[in-house]
Amino acid sequence: MNNRIKVLFLTTNFHKFEEAKKIFSNYNISLRQIDYPKIEIQSDYLEDIVSYALKNIKVINEPILVEDAGLFINYLNGFPGPYSSYVFKKIGNKGILKLLENVHERNAYFMSVVGLKTRKNVIKIFKGITYGRISRSEKGSRKFGYDPIFIPEGCSKTYAEMTINEKNKTSHRSKAFKKAIDWLINNLDNI
Amino acid sequence: MNNRIKVLFLTTNFHKFEEAKKIFSNYNISLRQIDYPKIEIQSDYLEDIVSYALKNIKVINEPILVEDAGLFINYLNGFPGPYSSYVFKKIGNKGILKLLENVHERNAYFMSVVGLKTRKNVIKIFKGITYGRISRSEKGSRKFGYDPIFIPEGCSKTYAEMTINEKNKTSHRSKAFKKAIDWLINNLDNI
Repeated sequence: MNNRIKVLFLTTNFHKFEEAKKIFSNYNISLRQIDYPKIEIQSDYLEDIVSYALKNIKVINEPILVEDAGLFINYLNGFPGPYSSYVFKKIGNKGILKLLENVHERNAYFMSVVGLKTRKNVIKIFKGITYGRISRSEKGSRKFGYDPIFIPEGCSKTYAEMTINEKNKTSHRSKAFKKAIDWLINNLDNI
Repeated sequence: MNNRIKVLFLTTNFHKFEEAKKIFSNYNISLRQIDYPKIEIQSDYLEDIVSYALKNIKVINEPILVEDAGLFINYLNGFPGPYSSYVFKKIGNKGILKLLENVHERNAYFMSVVGLKTRKNVIKIFKGITYGRISRSEKGSRKFGYDPIFIPEGCSKTYAEMTINEKNKTSHRSKAFKKAIDWLINNLDNI
């Protein structure tokens, strides 16, 4: 009997799927990407954005995951936060570094919110946070969003200087996905 | 017979209501503010944000207006655009001026999108654009959003240095609202 869990991940972002796939590959769960766009509301809370997106997905035959993440920079009152992806497209890491020019306080955190909708229409939310700081310049070859300017606490490298497996050891996204996996494994009868 | 048109304006923003009221007061239309929050999606297009908000308003007894506006700065690829209000809360005019420090190209435009939902559930969209430039520093006492750093084309004053009536002569918002008013007056049987 093959009771391998099958889960869908709704995302148009290749990097996110790549990271998630590596995490799920350590468990007996098959993850498949579906990449149609979801409805994203404007909100200061990633949880609200993720819940709303899930509620507006039509019922499907497999449990489905969505994820939203943001970089929250202390000196900028949490900017770019839930709008990280838009801000990145527009002003990029250069814009963020400009806003922090001559600024000593460089603390920041990355937050990932993973939402799961089961076949029974139950919605669960899982959160992962990684604290760190904004580097003085862009570093690293894995150029995914703000990864070249974010150094996790206790590290000397930016996310972009790490391999995906290294990043997954400390990353906000892996923390949230691991919580989701933990719930999935413990709720096989309810998904 | 009193056939004065009655219209609701759904906004939590006092400044917007104040500007709109002055425009409507020149016509035979009564404008009333209702200020419960609306659903705003994330989109690069103000039209989509406004349409979605209107579609999700329950049917009411009077025609209802919503408005969304954004400042689009050329050098920043249209940033902050549809997220102007969030960006303002977080980095303010100081952040925008910082991003444009030593930048010669300061062209920008303000866009306002007014959406109207009639009692018959018809949705109409009206757009107003005012071109101009970003000033080198904040100027003016009417401190509403980016008004202290936006100088409309052909003017030497920022929006914030103008009275509301002066601003309404050139502003993106007044252009959009005047189009809405024009439509209302010409469609009395359909609203």
